[in-house]
Amino acid sequence: MALFSSYSASYSIRCSSNRDNHDQNKQKLNNLRIISTSSRSSNKADILSPTAGVANTFNSITSIPENGYIPKEEVRQNIPTRKQLVDPHRQGLISQGGVGYMQTVVIRSYEVGPDKTATLESILNLLQETALNHVWMSGLLSNGFGATHGMVRNNLIWVVSRMQVQVDHYPIWGEVLEIDTWVGASGKNGMRRDWLIQSQATGHVFARATSTWVMMNQQTRRLSKMPEEVRDEISPWFIENQAIKEDSPEKIIKLDSKARYMNSNLKPKRSDLDMNQHVNNVKYVRWMLETIPDEILESRQLSSIILEYRRECGSSDIVQSLCHPDEDGILKDGLKQNNDISLLNGFSLASEILEGGGLLGSYEKAPLRYTHLLQTQGERGSGEIVRGRTTWKRKMSTAIPFST
Amino acid sequence: MALFSSYSASYSIRCSSNRDNHDQNKQKLNNLRIISTSSRSSNKADILSPTAGVANTFNSITSIPENGYIPKEEVRQNIPTRKQLVDPHRQGLISQGGVGYMQTVVIRSYEVGPDKTATLESILNLLQETALNHVWMSGLLSNGFGATHGMVRNNLIWVVSRMQVQVDHYPIWGEVLEIDTWVGASGKNGMRRDWLIQSQATGHVFARATSTWVMMNQQTRRLSKMPEEVRDEISPWFIENQAIKEDSPEKIIKLDSKARYMNSNLKPKRSDLDMNQHVNNVKYVRWMLETIPDEILESRQLSSIILEYRRECGSSDIVQSLCHPDEDGILKDGLKQNNDISLLNGFSLASEILEGGGLLGSYEKAPLRYTHLLQTQGERGSGEIVRGRTTWKRKMSTAIPFST
Repeated sequence: MALFSSYSASYSIRCSSNRDNHDQNKQKLNNLRIISTSSRSSNKADILSPTAGVANTFNSITSIPENGYIPKEEVRQNIPTRKQLVDPHRQGLISQGGVGYMQTVVIRSYEVGPDKTATLESILNLLQETALNHVWMSGLLSNGFGATHGMVRNNLIWVVSRMQVQVDHYPIWGEVLEIDTWVGASGKNGMRRDWLIQSQATGHVFARATSTWVMMNQQTRRLSKMPEEVRDEISPWFIENQAIKEDSPEKIIKLDSKARYMNSNLKPKRSDLDMNQHVNNVKYVRWMLETIPDEILESRQLSSIILEYRRECGSSDIVQSLCHPDEDGILKDGLKQNNDISLLNGFSLASEILEGGGLLGSYEKAPLRYTHLLQTQGERGSGEIVRGRTTWKRKMSTAIPFST
Repeated sequence: MALFSSYSASYSIRCSSNRDNHDQNKQKLNNLRIISTSSRSSNKADILSPTAGVANTFNSITSIPENGYIPKEEVRQNIPTRKQLVDPHRQGLISQGGVGYMQTVVIRSYEVGPDKTATLESILNLLQETALNHVWMSGLLSNGFGATHGMVRNNLIWVVSRMQVQVDHYPIWGEVLEIDTWVGASGKNGMRRDWLIQSQATGHVFARATSTWVMMNQQTRRLSKMPEEVRDEISPWFIENQAIKEDSPEKIIKLDSKARYMNSNLKPKRSDLDMNQHVNNVKYVRWMLETIPDEILESRQLSSIILEYRRECGSSDIVQSLCHPDEDGILKDGLKQNNDISLLNGFSLASEILEGGGLLGSYEKAPLRYTHLLQTQGERGSGEIVRGRTTWKRKMSTAIPFST
């Protein structure tokens, strides 16, 4: 529930670039900026060229120019009022025949974990970011958390009801990715948003994701039908392609106090709240994963997560994270995987059975599954926040030789 | 201590771009990519164009091409072996006469807090990122966490000994920033790294930062002199400019158990560890700020932080965060600030004194200062991790009219 909120505000377009500068390298980057389709004009502020400041008058920089004030939020954000095909700052462009969005991103040093691969949290953050940038580029974004102008007029915000992410390969520090995202219809009143994360260098698909969204009245907190004016805004962007095909989504059972792992008394901190004053989705996932035993996290990596959202979590809620391994899943998939492995690598499997104590040892190869529940703890009983399912596969080295 | 580590690895250059694609918008972004100074060659993987995949064969995407493997880490990271003037993916360029680095960044949706302004943690993350990208562009980066080739040959890593950040204005969601960073000498064996964060649109300086670094032997964990071969690598990049002028850095006292606020039993979580297997700096700052009372965090924003690092924090350490208000600072700065305010806005101050209960009420306007200490808790006594000082000024609206 935490991804998107909205509030109304007017705004205006004001761009900057093409400033005078004497830096040849900067000119090269500016060459790209000129491509941008938004209108650009020189303005008084351009005199305050930061590059000139750095290069020439470095020791006399003042924090705020004597006669200058920080511009209004609308000017600083500069949200486009019309569809924009390319955004050089975001490294984004409209794709898929004019309705999709593709953004190039570099995995940053702080987005990776100790093993130098991007964390699931970083991937979820990038999904949120590209979704919002898609709306940004569409010209439909009001000055909120992904809401369109029509939604703001109807006092509606987006709430996510389901999210599924499959990660085949985790990108590494410094790796350049292309993230595609697009939307489609989901029933009569919902929207589906999908993503595809690919290696920029090779086109390998690293991850895919799908999500479903509905609209909620911001005041009454009740779900809403999609008003005609909103449908008119967003339906031209709908396409049918699906990043993840699901014949029948599996049901996630509700865990109870018999769950094997439980973390209680989790309290949201200030830094866990997003623009909507609610605990951010990514924090949910962190709470979920922190119940998984350390030995699993060391030897395995998450290959799939499904989240079913039930209610919002506020800053004063106290949260409990439950987690239970899916024994059936281990057995079934263990056997299935064993068959695959014996076909591919019979000797290795046989020797591991000998060394590792028979069939139990070979379960190490199988994907593990866990069912999750986050719920609020309260005097008046518990309230479901989100149910989840995670799948974990054995960690592989990223340094597999490239076949040419 | 947590920012940079290193380990040795060989690598090769392999680039990709200029792929066949039929997307006009993508061509526009590619126009920039061509500017990059690194060598580019077409290769077999180019056939696996993700854009072609998305646009034309969307429903038949396979995760891994049948005959393809994920390339080696070195190929995926593609660290330049020679100085590179422009990196379109990172939106970065070499500046300041060939020795500085400037990167354009957009504040992302998940980098802001509930008030829609970038968090201090996000700013610290961006400082780390641009520092590493500066080394990346220099052609000096070995395949570690900021270490040069000469450092790796000498088994040395960077450790930060001091960091100071001043934030005059917090950037907001969607705002485009230019971050400049450069290095200089610090004594005989150290390095200073500075940063300047400016509004891309107006050139306003939002924040400045400075830090000092020394080298440590990775095995012995003892500080090291700077070897000649490392000095030869990095000294051509040194310049004298300073983002923050300090005549005499103030000493930070060591807090003890009499500190007013204390959070104990803080345990690093897996997600708090960085590539160096140590608790990341940013987590230190989060632990520090979480001891500040809520009412301060609601009405004030951090305007300055100084961090003095003493020792590393490992994943098994248990940490205590102490915090104490600087009473003298409140009084002294309170009176000073009052003078400024009465000159600027006498009526407002006078009425607040009347309404707010005299001089005590007017302290609300003054910057507050806190002294901080993070230390490990252990049976054999405590060990200092980092001392800190924070300054907090009253929150201002970001929506001040822009004077033209």
